[in-house]
Amino acid sequence: MIYQEPMLRDGALNGKTIIVTGGGTGLGKSMSREFLRLGANIVICSRRQEVIDATAAELSAETGGAVLAVPCDVRKYEEIENVLAKALERFGQVDGLVNNAAGNFISPTERLSHKAFEAVIGIVLQGSVNFTLALGKYWIEKGQPGTVVSIITSYAFTGTGYTVPSAVSKAGVRILTRSLAVEWARHKIRLNNIAPGPFPTKGAWDRLFPEQVAKLLSPETRVPAGRVGEHQELANLAAYLMSDYSAYITGQDITIDGGEWLKGAGQFSNLEAVPDEEWDEIERTIRRSTRKE
Amino acid sequence: MIYQEPMLRDGALNGKTIIVTGGGTGLGKSMSREFLRLGANIVICSRRQEVIDATAAELSAETGGAVLAVPCDVRKYEEIENVLAKALERFGQVDGLVNNAAGNFISPTERLSHKAFEAVIGIVLQGSVNFTLALGKYWIEKGQPGTVVSIITSYAFTGTGYTVPSAVSKAGVRILTRSLAVEWARHKIRLNNIAPGPFPTKGAWDRLFPEQVAKLLSPETRVPAGRVGEHQELANLAAYLMSDYSAYITGQDITIDGGEWLKGAGQFSNLEAVPDEEWDEIERTIRRSTRKE
Amino acid sequence: MIYQEPMLRDGALNGKTIIVTGGGTGLGKSMSREFLRLGANIVICSRRQEVIDATAAELSAETGGAVLAVPCDVRKYEEIENVLAKALERFGQVDGLVNNAAGNFISPTERLSHKAFEAVIGIVLQGSVNFTLALGKYWIEKGQPGTVVSIITSYAFTGTGYTVPSAVSKAGVRILTRSLAVEWARHKIRLNNIAPGPFPTKGAWDRLFPEQVAKLLSPETRVPAGRVGEHQELANLAAYLMSDYSAYITGQDITIDGGEWLKGAGQFSNLEAVPDEEWDEIERTIRRSTRKE
Amino acid sequence: MIYQEPMLRDGALNGKTIIVTGGGTGLGKSMSREFLRLGANIVICSRRQEVIDATAAELSAETGGAVLAVPCDVRKYEEIENVLAKALERFGQVDGLVNNAAGNFISPTERLSHKAFEAVIGIVLQGSVNFTLALGKYWIEKGQPGTVVSIITSYAFTGTGYTVPSAVSKAGVRILTRSLAVEWARHKIRLNNIAPGPFPTKGAWDRLFPEQVAKLLSPETRVPAGRVGEHQELANLAAYLMSDYSAYITGQDITIDGGEWLKGAGQFSNLEAVPDEEWDEIERTIRRSTRKE
Repeated sequence: MIYQEPMLRDGALNGKTIIVTGGGTGLGKSMSREFLRLGANIVICSRRQEVIDATAAELSAETGGAVLAVPCDVRKYEEIENVLAKALERFGQVDGLVNNAAGNFISPTERLSHKAFEAVIGIVLQGSVNFTLALGKYWIEKGQPGTVVSIITSYAFTGTGYTVPSAVSKAGVRILTRSLAVEWARHKIRLNNIAPGPFPTKGAWDRLFPEQVAKLLSPETRVPAGRVGEHQELANLAAYLMSDYSAYITGQDITIDGGEWLKGAGQFSNLEAVPDEEWDEIERTIRRSTRKE
Repeated sequence: MIYQEPMLRDGALNGKTIIVTGGGTGLGKSMSREFLRLGANIVICSRRQEVIDATAAELSAETGGAVLAVPCDVRKYEEIENVLAKALERFGQVDGLVNNAAGNFISPTERLSHKAFEAVIGIVLQGSVNFTLALGKYWIEKGQPGTVVSIITSYAFTGTGYTVPSAVSKAGVRILTRSLAVEWARHKIRLNNIAPGPFPTKGAWDRLFPEQVAKLLSPETRVPAGRVGEHQELANLAAYLMSDYSAYITGQDITIDGGEWLKGAGQFSNLEAVPDEEWDEIERTIRRSTRKE
Repeated sequence: MIYQEPMLRDGALNGKTIIVTGGGTGLGKSMSREFLRLGANIVICSRRQEVIDATAAELSAETGGAVLAVPCDVRKYEEIENVLAKALERFGQVDGLVNNAAGNFISPTERLSHKAFEAVIGIVLQGSVNFTLALGKYWIEKGQPGTVVSIITSYAFTGTGYTVPSAVSKAGVRILTRSLAVEWARHKIRLNNIAPGPFPTKGAWDRLFPEQVAKLLSPETRVPAGRVGEHQELANLAAYLMSDYSAYITGQDITIDGGEWLKGAGQFSNLEAVPDEEWDEIERTIRRSTRKE
Repeated sequence: MIYQEPMLRDGALNGKTIIVTGGGTGLGKSMSREFLRLGANIVICSRRQEVIDATAAELSAETGGAVLAVPCDVRKYEEIENVLAKALERFGQVDGLVNNAAGNFISPTERLSHKAFEAVIGIVLQGSVNFTLALGKYWIEKGQPGTVVSIITSYAFTGTGYTVPSAVSKAGVRILTRSLAVEWARHKIRLNNIAPGPFPTKGAWDRLFPEQVAKLLSPETRVPAGRVGEHQELANLAAYLMSDYSAYITGQDITIDGGEWLKGAGQFSNLEAVPDEEWDEIERTIRRSTRKE
């Protein structure tokens, strides 16, 4: 299928250096791979040195691109400054940032402590603030353009039960993007959000959804497109938003979820469960009852 | 329950004359009753003279208020001008409008003809445009303030399958409100939308939802509040928005649906199906898998 | 004007005890006054003991109602538990919460440190989380219903430059409401947001908007309604959402801003600057250019 | 600049036949050109035969691609059926549709007749319904996948004064997309919206904005990106959404406006007018007033 293939023209990210938080695994790794293929240098960071070292080696071997791995806890501003310093040392400048690091767990909210909220708000919201602020200060001081893509989720718009610390944090990140897209436009800084639906990732996925829960979230019934997403599809979208092809798009949320949240939200959308043959009978019933009046 | 009782102070709508389209039955009738109780004169209109005559007699007897019934097809501008002329003749001025007339049916969209869309767009969207435009021209010419409340639905925000002509029309009405709330504010005209969830109405409800469908839409499972709405609750909200108590609210959508659409929209909100005892096991699973890493 | 008067029927909040954070001044004080008038007991809290003591004395003298003042830093969970304990000791139960405490300042974002974000996120987002969580746990454990109203702002939807820490925090609070409205509905807990436009408050207002800035934000040109809001209008709305009259409204944002944000957002809404006489000329121009084609 | 160049890999639309309404001029023509470059056959239609014939000849010469021009009034369903029949006769199948035909004019709403609304609703909303319905019936009957892109505008979300017939119609189109994206997903039909900001087009632009108005809408002050959009940028986005690279994106609105509407909507975003040197003074003022408390 074409959507499993790279989309942008070769060299679309030539000469750019991009930092990807949480870049050692999952979607962060997939985006990093695509950026490398398109000519970018990549800086990946996460808390676990051995994970990002292995990913850096793997991606570099696979694509021939330059990958720097710097450990970092996004809650600690000085560690972010260290990532930036190392990146500048190695590549001379930084052009892009993907806020992808996240933390989440499912639970009824009343079972959580306020510290559970603090932890997730710290990683997801304050972490994205920290990285965006550090890069923004650097770009503005240097008078250099910059591009930010943040990974959010559809429940950043709608809310959701059972992952509330993540919902409030992602909502904050969403509005960080919308706010700075306007304020920092005059500094040639551009920011957008991607809200991915179900893109399974070994590890994150299993941990987040134990078996009892997974069956309630089955993409077959919940996602109009009838399938989960492929990492390449998300990587293509991220590359588009990171590249200068999207220069006139800023402050936007782009949801890539096969229609999942709209289906849940639409009051009558679950009528697809009505078998085709019953619609004839329904039509007759409606006509009769309309006529009676 | 308190929500089954009138909310506003007596006399809150004293001296106002309010036109309610589709005021002969259902929610239109319930809103009219409440406006009368609060001191307003009411003009109800719909296509069926005998229905609105009966309602006018009933509401007048019940509340002691003045009710004028004028037949009207909202798709025909001259019939609207006739309603306005009759209302002015009887009451001297008109202060408010409730766009409540609607038409709807459930069906897979590919089974519909373009004429089915034309019919619903004509009644719901063009009908609301017609009435709002006629009243707006009258208010602006007279230099008199006016208030409009339009009844929409949550699928005007989100869309929905299986009632698409209604969805596109209500979406148009929603934006009519938002647009004129800004443009006509300088003429002291205020407009708001109410998006009701399930408020069953004998007739409309049965006709719209034959038995095969009703079970798919059960409020018990779909509405977080666990019940359908009471007409008085909606009437209280409509009276608030029609009264000068809400003078600083304009261009807004207020949804009164017991949380229905947000529940459907929230990615993990259906995890309420997980029984409490399973959450302990899930917590253990998550901890184990986190620790392993 | 009617909107400067109390709206709900007397006794609408009889027997309820409501905690109002930031209740010592400004809108928090105005809401507290209205709740007292309607029969509620009030618990106000803020960091400054002397401010809330004075307000408690004043409001109690004015309304004859019972007001308890407990100092509290909303960032400290144990201080919130202390407010709850004191409230239960005095009134036996708590029925409502208004998340109104806030912190804000205007500044270009690149001039802020990450600590400025931490401070505002701590007060506005984590503070609202803390209070809501503490009350929710209490309500669920007791099997008792509860109602929460949170004060947000229209830039929680749209973002805004120059007050970005507040924007991201209020966005988080907005989604906290939407999420728990669904998840906690089965525990009979209801939550809504109010987004006020310009409601000037001595102190907050002057501090937030020095003279150089105030002229850029003039309500006369920015707010379609052409005026700032009156505290009573906001207090009426808050009382409605706190009362059982609004039992079927949950998870909602209600904006009360005279149309401010919609005017800014609408692409052509500033054409009101075109004087009426010029529209004739424009009409002619458009007709001519259309005819030429 | 890279954004003035084609983005997708060559052949991305090979073998597809795409109908573009309003394809004779402006953005419709620019999208058609890009689709041709990427390997698609194009069917353009509009009411004026001579315009689409000239465009067909020009684009075909320029790209070497196959272009069919069929005159069509989108308000007349049988003319749409004729376009489809001709397209099938020439190309054997149709794979995509761009709903781009539009009609608009600026005017205070009270100066409009209800017929002005009928005309715009007919072209923009009913016209898009008609084309989408005709194609949907064809795709579902044949069991063949299909893709629809509809051109809306940011005021379809927010409303706007002074172009209200267009606003209500585009709002309807927006929700048509959201609704059918869910309902027709099981038929492998995908629909998305693009909301372009200012992309000047000779003719449409001058006609819509006479000189008196143009200065009120200056992109230099209103658009954070500080410039109008280039047709190629929009064509790249449309090609992405029409291609199978975006297979997992459906029901979405993508705004490409350089941040225009978010800037207007953000309460404090116009503080960019505060010169940098004044911020120092403001900081001191805020600190002093905070300290006094």
